[in-house]
Amino acid sequence: MTLLLVGLPLAAQSQTTDERLRRGDAVVRSLNNDVPQPTLERMRQEFPFLAEATQAYALGDVWSRPGLDNRTRQLAAVAVFAAMGETAFMRIHAGYALNIGVSEAELKETIYMVTVPAGFPRAIAASHVLAELFAARRATVGESR
Amino acid sequence: MTLLLVGLPLAAQSQTTDERLRRGDAVVRSLNNDVPQPTLERMRQEFPFLAEATQAYALGDVWSRPGLDNRTRQLAAVAVFAAMGETAFMRIHAGYALNIGVSEAELKETIYMVTVPAGFPRAIAASHVLAELFAARRATVGESR
Amino acid sequence: MTLLLVGLPLAAQSQTTDERLRRGDAVVRSLNNDVPQPTLERMRQEFPFLAEATQAYALGDVWSRPGLDNRTRQLAAVAVFAAMGETAFMRIHAGYALNIGVSEAELKETIYMVTVPAGFPRAIAASHVLAELFAARRATVGESR
Amino acid sequence: MTLLLVGLPLAAQSQTTDERLRRGDAVVRSLNNDVPQPTLERMRQEFPFLAEATQAYALGDVWSRPGLDNRTRQLAAVAVFAAMGETAFMRIHAGYALNIGVSEAELKETIYMVTVPAGFPRAIAASHVLAELFAARRATVGESR
Amino acid sequence: MTLLLVGLPLAAQSQTTDERLRRGDAVVRSLNNDVPQPTLERMRQEFPFLAEATQAYALGDVWSRPGLDNRTRQLAAVAVFAAMGETAFMRIHAGYALNIGVSEAELKETIYMVTVPAGFPRAIAASHVLAELFAARRATVGESR
Amino acid sequence: MTLLLVGLPLAAQSQTTDERLRRGDAVVRSLNNDVPQPTLERMRQEFPFLAEATQAYALGDVWSRPGLDNRTRQLAAVAVFAAMGETAFMRIHAGYALNIGVSEAELKETIYMVTVPAGFPRAIAASHVLAELFAARRATVGESR
Repeated sequence: MTLLLVGLPLAAQSQTTDERLRRGDAVVRSLNNDVPQPTLERMRQEFPFLAEATQAYALGDVWSRPGLDNRTRQLAAVAVFAAMGETAFMRIHAGYALNIGVSEAELKETIYMVTVPAGFPRAIAASHVLAELFAARRATVGESR
Repeated sequence: MTLLLVGLPLAAQSQTTDERLRRGDAVVRSLNNDVPQPTLERMRQEFPFLAEATQAYALGDVWSRPGLDNRTRQLAAVAVFAAMGETAFMRIHAGYALNIGVSEAELKETIYMVTVPAGFPRAIAASHVLAELFAARRATVGESR
Repeated sequence: MTLLLVGLPLAAQSQTTDERLRRGDAVVRSLNNDVPQPTLERMRQEFPFLAEATQAYALGDVWSRPGLDNRTRQLAAVAVFAAMGETAFMRIHAGYALNIGVSEAELKETIYMVTVPAGFPRAIAASHVLAELFAARRATVGESR
Repeated sequence: MTLLLVGLPLAAQSQTTDERLRRGDAVVRSLNNDVPQPTLERMRQEFPFLAEATQAYALGDVWSRPGLDNRTRQLAAVAVFAAMGETAFMRIHAGYALNIGVSEAELKETIYMVTVPAGFPRAIAASHVLAELFAARRATVGESR
Repeated sequence: MTLLLVGLPLAAQSQTTDERLRRGDAVVRSLNNDVPQPTLERMRQEFPFLAEATQAYALGDVWSRPGLDNRTRQLAAVAVFAAMGETAFMRIHAGYALNIGVSEAELKETIYMVTVPAGFPRAIAASHVLAELFAARRATVGESR
Repeated sequence: MTLLLVGLPLAAQSQTTDERLRRGDAVVRSLNNDVPQPTLERMRQEFPFLAEATQAYALGDVWSRPGLDNRTRQLAAVAVFAAMGETAFMRIHAGYALNIGVSEAELKETIYMVTVPAGFPRAIAASHVLAELFAARRATVGESR
């Protein structure tokens, strides 16, 4: 029987979607300075399943896994989003990275690396968006002093 | 509180991953002539989470949704896999489409359509793989007579 | 001789480009509430061959083919444009889909499906554009009452 | 009336698909040493519309246009196919380029250029396929002596 | 020893990065009417390595190579940027192409060609950006009279 | 003057390509158990500039930078290659990762993450290639006992 082959511990199989959603919410809060993520919230009204899948699967199932430390996962995600030309998502995840202690310098190195697998346009576009993100955060810090 | 905004009915929130896995298994069986899918089975040993995510999320959560009929979902999926150059997955889902009553002619029309959004190489590569699939299925039917 | 192998009926081979352009115009009108399509019109002055190819080939040859019903073709096209990150074209074809009777719910399901072959960023970006399209059309309907 | 805006000369509008197919056949023969192209022929039986569209639109309409010389069009096409990871089509069009007098050195330069917009993996994969093509053609020339 | 296999002339191996940067600067000036390129300049402050790599590698090493004439390289680059959906970089390189004597008509033909390998959306999006570029340059010429 | 704005230390500007090539060679050896990399060596004869650019720029300039630790850079690169569908390069860099002490489990987690930005087909294809790599390395270890 197929299901017996799934290598999941029994505890994982009995978890509910509500538990997965709570775990996803905890992941967002841990990455986003304990506030909800606007892109996710924006989908709840019109695209509830997409909001749920992002929260329960992407964040609750994948992003919560303990096998990769948060810094490495965020830097790898930033590299992938940059290489795919998905600069809006790169900006979100670069912000998360900064929130958990990744340095601006490490984000820059990640973008430099992207020139090799994905070419210069994707890296340059990512650098513009990162420069805007850095400036926006410095402005906010300046205001809050 | 964020979670209250998720537009899921309570019944959905209390479903377990075991239930999602069973639903994914039922989806595979309904599309694949009641036998397991080899690409999925191949991952269970070494990549158990990926096998689980494919079964519980991709098949159990997404592919089981009632809002789109199976024929339309399969043809849309075949178009996307062809447009992305993912011919191995296109072949799997084109086989599913044939299993549930989509005609060879409809699959061909879907590939013709792909020339417009994604260009001729992706459509031509898909046509080669579809021609192989059609031939393999005719050979099997011939043998089983 | 190569040409004899082309499986076209003689009637198709004797059609003129003028006939193909008229058929493309009829396809646009049937999908776009009987008005011209602005993106197409915009190209006529500076890029006449591209306008002609869109009208005669993409619309007149491909989109007019009878082997796939309009609903399925539009939903498959929406899925492909979303998966490729081509949200402007997705919006045009989602509008066509609504014009011919596809429901908002079916478009949402199509976008949910896209998370599986193409990942979450492409589906989320598509959801934002669809939400804008839905809002714009509701605003127009409200005005015209 | 929309059609009046199309900037096509009347002669072009009255051309038949049969004429477009003949022009496409002439393009193939001019690029492929006067023999049919196997990838195209392979589609005629099962995917007749795709074969026709390739011959009448891609080759007959686009590739026959006089505004770009054949060398430039072939080198640009080789660059695009390499950048997209479409090495099978790159090989076909690199072969056409050699047939019309483009040098191996110019093809190599085109691939070097691809590292900048599309990254090193696409350029390196293209270089392997080009090296095979060059070797295969030298072997054939050796045999025919 | 690996390094002995590198087919570089000794002169190339002894060139300094300063020489490569000067060559890249000369390439920009030759393509950009002897003024610096704003996208490149914008990176210098925050992403100095990316600015250096663009100037020394992309421009100084690749774009300065003598094996491909500038017109062919620019048209191939425009085709690749259009096919990848990188319209901002396509605009920069189309502007370079015009600066060195490529005609608007040749750029249009290059975009028409892109429909075949990469589909209509990428070609249409490129046509919009080219139309804007052409209009902007005509406006500038008008002003300077 | 443009060049003065480049934020390179003078020492970097006076480095020679020979020094960059030596540094690239050292990077390969540190990642590849002190033996040359076959894909790189294969290009030297026919595509010397591409071999040089890979060694001097990709490896010597980018991969040698101290701002990112080797484990993070390799995992980010594996994620990018998987997300782009470049499984051959993913295999090379996953092998490097294992050579420098990254665990099989960390590589698996990286692939699980890829389902979110790039979808299931790219992650599943990557899992097959990783499973082959793991098996090949275990077979080699078995033989060498």
